[in-house]
Amino acid sequence: MQRYFISNDQINDNNIVIVGDDVHHITRVLRMKTGDELLCSCSESGKTAHAKIVEITSDTVQVDVVKWLETTSELPVRVAIANGLPKGDKLELVIQKGTELGAHHFIPFIAARSIVKWDEKKGPKKVDRWNKISKEAAEQSHRSFIPKVETPLTFQQLMEKSKEWDYKIVAYEEDAKVGEKSAFATTLQKIKPNESILLVVGPEGGLTEKEVDKLKEHGFISCALGPRILRTETAPLYGLAAISYQFELL
Amino acid sequence: MQRYFISNDQINDNNIVIVGDDVHHITRVLRMKTGDELLCSCSESGKTAHAKIVEITSDTVQVDVVKWLETTSELPVRVAIANGLPKGDKLELVIQKGTELGAHHFIPFIAARSIVKWDEKKGPKKVDRWNKISKEAAEQSHRSFIPKVETPLTFQQLMEKSKEWDYKIVAYEEDAKVGEKSAFATTLQKIKPNESILLVVGPEGGLTEKEVDKLKEHGFISCALGPRILRTETAPLYGLAAISYQFELL
Repeated sequence: MQRYFISNDQINDNNIVIVGDDVHHITRVLRMKTGDELLCSCSESGKTAHAKIVEITSDTVQVDVVKWLETTSELPVRVAIANGLPKGDKLELVIQKGTELGAHHFIPFIAARSIVKWDEKKGPKKVDRWNKISKEAAEQSHRSFIPKVETPLTFQQLMEKSKEWDYKIVAYEEDAKVGEKSAFATTLQKIKPNESILLVVGPEGGLTEKEVDKLKEHGFISCALGPRILRTETAPLYGLAAISYQFELL
Repeated sequence: MQRYFISNDQINDNNIVIVGDDVHHITRVLRMKTGDELLCSCSESGKTAHAKIVEITSDTVQVDVVKWLETTSELPVRVAIANGLPKGDKLELVIQKGTELGAHHFIPFIAARSIVKWDEKKGPKKVDRWNKISKEAAEQSHRSFIPKVETPLTFQQLMEKSKEWDYKIVAYEEDAKVGEKSAFATTLQKIKPNESILLVVGPEGGLTEKEVDKLKEHGFISCALGPRILRTETAPLYGLAAISYQFELL
């Protein structure tokens, strides 16, 4: 069943008003009619309703809730991925796949070895695009929450912001090279449901020693994600899959 | 240190002769000289040598082994990924990222819902390209083994071939929808080092019920990879990351 994301103020008890681009998608792309069924997920509350179309106008689709669903497809821990700004469309891959894998939040940051310059003028358009990718991936993967993608932070801003998370982890290539094995799993096993994790990953070429030292000063645990050297866009996906395995399957 | 893959017959006790494209890479791209050091990995034996260049000719580079390395970056279990042939360049992504994540073998197969037609004429060139991607990803991620990518099999051939693996798993979207949670982790926990796993993943649109039934008849265990619906190219990466987490970090 097709899923649409709504905000709290679109809900009126058991009636929901769908507006914006989704109206076009429902009426023109899928050509749905009164009586057809769909899913409405509210990203703020994490709740999902199974609903039925009761009225279609040119700019709204009204649906009645058939049933609020009990199950959730959300990770029991909130995981934010902070990626050193990479080249090309790698961050798009991280956002799309990371959303499928359950990420709660994406925070690109400008790392010492980030080659791309952040263009303040073109930036907002890029951030919009990233958020569109996370919305589409959330719909496709049956999430009930759309992860937010932030405007890239400076390293200093990332340090400040990192205080908001319960656990802070940095994936560090040099740890993989010297055979570090236990830090990641040991940390995950300490985390309780509803706690939050911030996972920092470097850009191509990795984080500098100085950056890793700074992160450790700010309470980050440095760890290897297995013995192989992962690309900047692969490391967050490993992290998220391992977190899902630990908290959802084990 | 740069890594090159060699075959057993290039090794003569403590002397290795590098030939082919790698000679160009060593002498022209990296402009290395006698006395410079590099790594030689033998994919057949899984062994890696730290070596030093002793002679350069126009078509060979001779190196002396300084030391055979003890550490391995290979997964303790052999994982083959059988992907229903997907559209576009998705399989390339699976091969590149899957190699980084430790896959041992890739087996594309023509699934009922595979939209791409396999072109017997252009096929061999495509398979060569896939194998080149796995070689490059193996070098980049410091693997000592290059995963082989097979020519796509029919579903019937995949059934036949599946007998070669100790454990056979099929990732099934319908299991994710009904909240199946334990089969994947329970199976992984039974597997011992050096055993082998075949993980089958459908193309876009998933496997048909009939295919999943056939797989089960052939001893496959059907399971969900978490509660979210993963794209065809994301599921193998989740599988490999979870296997690495289970066998290398926990």
